[in-house]
Amino acid sequence: MEVFPDDPAAILDRLIALADTGAADLILTTGGTGIGPRDSTPEATTQACHKLLPGIAELMREEGRKKTPRAVLSRAVAGVRGRTIIVNLPGSPRGAVESFDAIADLLPHALQVLGGARHD
Amino acid sequence: MEVFPDDPAAILDRLIALADTGAADLILTTGGTGIGPRDSTPEATTQACHKLLPGIAELMREEGRKKTPRAVLSRAVAGVRGRTIIVNLPGSPRGAVESFDAIADLLPHALQVLGGARHD
Amino acid sequence: MEVFPDDPAAILDRLIALADTGAADLILTTGGTGIGPRDSTPEATTQACHKLLPGIAELMREEGRKKTPRAVLSRAVAGVRGRTIIVNLPGSPRGAVESFDAIADLLPHALQVLGGARHD
Repeated sequence: MEVFPDDPAAILDRLIALADTGAADLILTTGGTGIGPRDSTPEATTQACHKLLPGIAELMREEGRKKTPRAVLSRAVAGVRGRTIIVNLPGSPRGAVESFDAIADLLPHALQVLGGARHD
Repeated sequence: MEVFPDDPAAILDRLIALADTGAADLILTTGGTGIGPRDSTPEATTQACHKLLPGIAELMREEGRKKTPRAVLSRAVAGVRGRTIIVNLPGSPRGAVESFDAIADLLPHALQVLGGARHD
Repeated sequence: MEVFPDDPAAILDRLIALADTGAADLILTTGGTGIGPRDSTPEATTQACHKLLPGIAELMREEGRKKTPRAVLSRAVAGVRGRTIIVNLPGSPRGAVESFDAIADLLPHALQVLGGARHD
């Protein structure tokens, strides 16, 4: 686990390095997904990813809304860089756990596909 | 309230001017969210915004579908430029009111965050 | 019906040619919507389209999830190029039929709007 400043360039560099060195199959970020001026994790993640997974973001917002209406405002994204999946979670510990729970069941299959299995 | 032609460049200029002069905390557009060749409000809004709020758009479509299946076709977006929130509403008066009602409860918090409060 | 390799440039060229010659009002693609390295139909479609229809993609994922949770991972998009609607369907025959069924009722109206009717 690492802690980073709200600096999109630093976040982007770190995401790319973690993915491209094969150091991580799954990168979970927390925080920086709101609408404030310093919230830029989704932008860095979008830039880092070769492919976005909009359904993951939709599902996290949809499940989050069952707990708090403000989950609608989350700009969290998820995507793929090479064989690495990157998922943004919100900054509050409870919100991060809830978002992760919403998508956890999908990750084994997704990681397996990226690991080499064929998938249409 | 202002009325504009379906000219994306003119809409973009006006959105930027309204936001950057601090003249508006919230800009609501109506119309131009459909799939026709002259519908370009979402493109102008996307260009004007520093950050998009996809959950707002998803929620407006989801609530809209409860009234009319065609709400699926709405391309309305919402986003943030500086401290200003911009939300596209559909062109029909009834649709505009319904879309606004779907998200109205979220706006005070969002505007408060942009006004300076810290939010993760 | 045509079969193409998983080559984004070839898919893009073909989508553009089909749309711009007026050969098709509606183009349905199947396959290449997953998260694997060779899945690039959504990227080609996004590039080909002048306007995206995110509500169509959301609806296909939402309906798909009722059958299989993995539908969340679909990156299928839909959009408009000129007067042609392009919709990505998944590669599995059953998934393609289910996705198409989810949106079929919307297409006559959408095609009518593109054919000249005015729509806000």
